[in-house]
Amino acid sequence: MIPHTEALSRLLAPVTPVGTEIVSLAQSSGRIVARTVQARVSNPPADVSAMDGYAVRSADSATVLRVVGTSRAGEPFSGTVHAAEAVRIFTGSIMPEGADAVLIQENARLEGGTIVATAPVPDGSFVRRAGQDFAAGQDVVQSGACLNARAIGLLAAAGHVWVEVRRRPRVALLTTGDELSLPGDPLPPGGIYNSNGPMLSALVHAAGAEPVLLPPLPDSREDVAAVLAGLRDIDLVISMGGASVGAHDVMRDALSMAGFAPDFWTIAMRPGKPLMHARKGSLSCIGLPGNPVAALVCGIVFVLPVIARLQGRTSYQVPTESATLGCDLGGNDMRFDHLRARLTFDENGDTVATPFSKQDSGMLSALSQADALVLRPSHAPAARAGERCRIIRLAPLGL
Amino acid sequence: MIPHTEALSRLLAPVTPVGTEIVSLAQSSGRIVARTVQARVSNPPADVSAMDGYAVRSADSATVLRVVGTSRAGEPFSGTVHAAEAVRIFTGSIMPEGADAVLIQENARLEGGTIVATAPVPDGSFVRRAGQDFAAGQDVVQSGACLNARAIGLLAAAGHVWVEVRRRPRVALLTTGDELSLPGDPLPPGGIYNSNGPMLSALVHAAGAEPVLLPPLPDSREDVAAVLAGLRDIDLVISMGGASVGAHDVMRDALSMAGFAPDFWTIAMRPGKPLMHARKGSLSCIGLPGNPVAALVCGIVFVLPVIARLQGRTSYQVPTESATLGCDLGGNDMRFDHLRARLTFDENGDTVATPFSKQDSGMLSALSQADALVLRPSHAPAARAGERCRIIRLAPLGL
Repeated sequence: MIPHTEALSRLLAPVTPVGTEIVSLAQSSGRIVARTVQARVSNPPADVSAMDGYAVRSADSATVLRVVGTSRAGEPFSGTVHAAEAVRIFTGSIMPEGADAVLIQENARLEGGTIVATAPVPDGSFVRRAGQDFAAGQDVVQSGACLNARAIGLLAAAGHVWVEVRRRPRVALLTTGDELSLPGDPLPPGGIYNSNGPMLSALVHAAGAEPVLLPPLPDSREDVAAVLAGLRDIDLVISMGGASVGAHDVMRDALSMAGFAPDFWTIAMRPGKPLMHARKGSLSCIGLPGNPVAALVCGIVFVLPVIARLQGRTSYQVPTESATLGCDLGGNDMRFDHLRARLTFDENGDTVATPFSKQDSGMLSALSQADALVLRPSHAPAARAGERCRIIRLAPLGL
Repeated sequence: MIPHTEALSRLLAPVTPVGTEIVSLAQSSGRIVARTVQARVSNPPADVSAMDGYAVRSADSATVLRVVGTSRAGEPFSGTVHAAEAVRIFTGSIMPEGADAVLIQENARLEGGTIVATAPVPDGSFVRRAGQDFAAGQDVVQSGACLNARAIGLLAAAGHVWVEVRRRPRVALLTTGDELSLPGDPLPPGGIYNSNGPMLSALVHAAGAEPVLLPPLPDSREDVAAVLAGLRDIDLVISMGGASVGAHDVMRDALSMAGFAPDFWTIAMRPGKPLMHARKGSLSCIGLPGNPVAALVCGIVFVLPVIARLQGRTSYQVPTESATLGCDLGGNDMRFDHLRARLTFDENGDTVATPFSKQDSGMLSALSQADALVLRPSHAPAARAGERCRIIRLAPLGL
């Protein structure tokens, strides 16, 4: 048995980012930036007012000022502000020539065409400097970043309408098993529906890659080998169901027949023990356990980081956080455990993670009720309710 | 000024869920279930083995057993197990008639066609009961749930291939402002690019709704009214830029001209002070501040919950969690504050939230660097580094 961290390192080592494409900013949500982007303009483009009020000269000793014009958004005042003058100005509008501070309207009394300042105005008051947010030429979004609403807003403000991103990795999903039918297809007596294909498809989609759900195959090495050998334009293969240590294991032979160099590992983790890795040219195949709960957990632990590497995401790690343990736990054996757990909040608002008392890895219904996985390292000592633990929250992963 | 919680209640009160549609399970990721789904089959469909081994009768006192057949996945043993008999069985395969327990292969020594049990086998050992995961007819996914990979796996296992979900709410985004150009369009001197449209579009998309980005309009009440009056098949309108308290405010007039009943509020929150709400028939319009940082924060606080209500999500709240404050903070005034902050981890792995020292609401670049918003309620007393605080994490929201 090897630690799952070692398995992950070995899976990641040969993976390199996929190619790039151009997408419009409007279509870029969730995509991974392939080239650091520089601002094309400065923001603000010039010194602007941070408040509604009057643009003035701070050196001005006059307290009664003549209003000589207005600076509106999109319609700046084109003249110059001289001594004893002011220009009406609104938030975000460009400071006129000569003015260096803003008298906010709360401190100005309007009397006909003049204003009376009821408070002194220090140099630079309520002025946002040109380029204070970002200057033209400055990096605004880094290569490897995932584009979210804020980054998209920033790119728009910086004048960009196209972004070079990694194309979505194409991930083929291959399920094998004589007993499996896709939902909606006829189910023979004693047969079960294929849940791994649709479930891992959704995981791949949530990770920002493109799932390619291959037709399910019987446990036949020839059939599996033919499909594997015929794959084109695929960046990663995930197989499920053929990797058990039982007598039905056909995947090793099929991979060899299809020209892959297979490598089978037993991983010191739970759920999920057998893990397969094979490589042909630049294409990796990861074989997940057939048990759906184990398949999902191994999908989180192994597939998400591999997809992130294909996407060129920098230093991606599956996000973990700390929580308070909600119940006592016995000492762990050598297998790193991922306990399905409910999250609640204590009186301080702190997250409390309480593993289900029954950790049956056959229970898809219990898995669907879980909010998080509580991480129990190999040989972790017994833990008491109230101690800190580390968790992976599932909903934020879209899982 | 009204508390933002009151504003939110008033925004949510009139909102009802949109209609439903049928999507295929393969296309259902992120959609909201509109009708509770029952399992069509039981899982497991019959008693099955939880391990590789031999199906036996636990009452059997014999320790030498004749192997009379094999039960494989998809190919069950059709006979009956009698005294002193065993059937070779694999994980997930159906228990044969007569057998009630599994002798795991680690406890069996194979000698020709017989096995020798090296340990006793209690009744029910390593047998997973029919329906242990879920029984036919049982609710498996509730109305109002967001479909993630696990729910999709569960629906597949339960025999479903179509799901009734809420259609994606169509959210129109209207930006006004004489100074605004869409990125890529010509930028007049002193003009700025429209970041709110693309940014809030991405927020709407991340929330699972369909953004409809309307052509940006000048600050003209007639133009805005014409667009508002002409809207069709829209479930929510978000306007930005016309809601400031400055002289350029045309939105109130435009809404009235278009038949909306407008209601302007000043909200005791920061960033974001003016908020607009208007209603025409079943259509709400929410007016966000024009400042992009305030627009995003108000989008999180107000737009996400309204979209969730349109989607029929049950008891949705923007997820908050607790963290350790990374620096001292002064006492707060009456405006509920949302401080842009970085997250780090202390030596126990606990989340530490450190607000940026400069909370300039004009800084899109700083907003894009933030990991979270630290929530500072109205009149919160000064707080010291090390105290607990509540935060909204941005990345898990896709923002």
